[in-house]
Amino acid sequence: MEFPKFVDVVEEGPREGFQMETEIFPIEERAALVNRLADTGLSKIQVGAFVGSRVPQMADTAQLFDLIRKREGTRYTALWLNERGFKRAWATPKVDLDGKLMFYSSDAFCRLNNGCGMAEMQERQRDWLALYDDANLPLETAYIMTSFGCNIQGNVPVEDVLAPILFVRDICESEGRETPKIVLGDTVGWANPETIKERVAAVRQTWPGVRVGLHLHDTRGLGIANVYAALQIGVDLFEGSVGGLGGCPFAGIEDAKGAGNVATEEVVFLCHSLGIETGIDLDALVDAALMAERIVGRRLGGRVMHAGIRNN
Amino acid sequence: MEFPKFVDVVEEGPREGFQMETEIFPIEERAALVNRLADTGLSKIQVGAFVGSRVPQMADTAQLFDLIRKREGTRYTALWLNERGFKRAWATPKVDLDGKLMFYSSDAFCRLNNGCGMAEMQERQRDWLALYDDANLPLETAYIMTSFGCNIQGNVPVEDVLAPILFVRDICESEGRETPKIVLGDTVGWANPETIKERVAAVRQTWPGVRVGLHLHDTRGLGIANVYAALQIGVDLFEGSVGGLGGCPFAGIEDAKGAGNVATEEVVFLCHSLGIETGIDLDALVDAALMAERIVGRRLGGRVMHAGIRNN
Repeated sequence: MEFPKFVDVVEEGPREGFQMETEIFPIEERAALVNRLADTGLSKIQVGAFVGSRVPQMADTAQLFDLIRKREGTRYTALWLNERGFKRAWATPKVDLDGKLMFYSSDAFCRLNNGCGMAEMQERQRDWLALYDDANLPLETAYIMTSFGCNIQGNVPVEDVLAPILFVRDICESEGRETPKIVLGDTVGWANPETIKERVAAVRQTWPGVRVGLHLHDTRGLGIANVYAALQIGVDLFEGSVGGLGGCPFAGIEDAKGAGNVATEEVVFLCHSLGIETGIDLDALVDAALMAERIVGRRLGGRVMHAGIRNN
Repeated sequence: MEFPKFVDVVEEGPREGFQMETEIFPIEERAALVNRLADTGLSKIQVGAFVGSRVPQMADTAQLFDLIRKREGTRYTALWLNERGFKRAWATPKVDLDGKLMFYSSDAFCRLNNGCGMAEMQERQRDWLALYDDANLPLETAYIMTSFGCNIQGNVPVEDVLAPILFVRDICESEGRETPKIVLGDTVGWANPETIKERVAAVRQTWPGVRVGLHLHDTRGLGIANVYAALQIGVDLFEGSVGGLGGCPFAGIEDAKGAGNVATEEVVFLCHSLGIETGIDLDALVDAALMAERIVGRRLGGRVMHAGIRNN
């Protein structure tokens, strides 16, 4: 199979990166980073989260949105994990709402993140859909978290990845909805290049014609190899965090700061090296990674940001 | 093509890692690290270098060899860059000599490293071969440095990688020598998964039946993706540095400490994840990486060493 000609790269650093930090950095600096990221040509940036008090780093998300300067061509999205969060996002003027559902393939992880098991979380998604319908918001993406394994539960059977997809497929077919994108999340870094290929293929077989994206972490050093494996089978949608910020506060890893998302600029660097377009200015993205590093005040895990881009 | 069933992984950290450090660490700690690495089951460890005064970190290599406890099943090798260095290695009792030739695909890089251009370096290899013949040492490996590009020269044409290989092939054929291994070095981190495949294929076409290995750096974050690409075309020999130590002092990268070799334990982790055997105890190798981190006294770039190995 040929590589895709164009790959969409989504930036999650301002949300997933900063939520991992013990410190809350000045809001002006975080707004400046979002502006800088948008100027690289990124078409979608997750700016913050409307979540509960467990994540104080995200408490000022509404104010952060107020400070950013919106650029045409970039969507500024946010995370929510329940109806209350969605309503807060809806009430925040600059948020670009995207209709998304959240599923889990690990019961243990779902309980840690949401206080309910994955079956109940699945049922809750019907209420989310009703909310989106009220807001006239089309269903855009179904996320399947911990699709490759989880530090608490261990291995995740492929059936537990496909079950929520069948659930969404049946709803869409019976209600005449458009097919959403499916994003498989390697939430705590369990994927390897072969499980990437196996699970993306299983999703496509389950729902022919669906577009599959990947949310990958570089927890154990295989992140960019996993991106390459996915590109080989035509995956054209990836989420990363600038500089390799991020991780998951509930991943059960002691030294969590070593365990970030794939670095957005390395996903872009790999794509460009393979002749795949992204619409993103890589030099500007490396500058944004260095800006993120200055904000957090410690060396980030990204490599190309420190070595510089070569020209071949 | 199927993955290889078994992959040889060579450890270069004690030499390539420590030569990059500005500090010279206590020799007992470096000897203990070599012993620890050997206990993981590694079959070959490059312990040090017999080189000139430009690399003071390697000046005590003979004493270091004296301190190590040799384990059966592990070869303890050393680097040399000229006849004088080889003679010093030869005179050091515990060194396991391996007959190797050194070629460069970048003239500029060769001049920096050796004080002569790549054509002269190529001619010098005839003298190296004569030395090995005197020592009754078979030619084992031909290294082609900067096979994928170089920060000084930029891109390296594939012809400049193949020229030294043709040179060695002609010598071996005319003199009835066994075919050595060819190791392509991505000395300063210019390779991407497609150039890996392209150049390994070109070498195999130039010298049918030759075994090709790779010496890779993770300078720009593509190191493990490059290993995966190579495994896909059956490459079964890789060199790495424990913890991602290393780099190249003459790479022309300002912040050189960000620019290490591929982490040996991540090469092994990738192989084991794909069901490929290495004969190496990965848990013990992660312990060795953490030991290396304690010796250098700063956080190393390796990821799986910090996140821990999961069980899938």
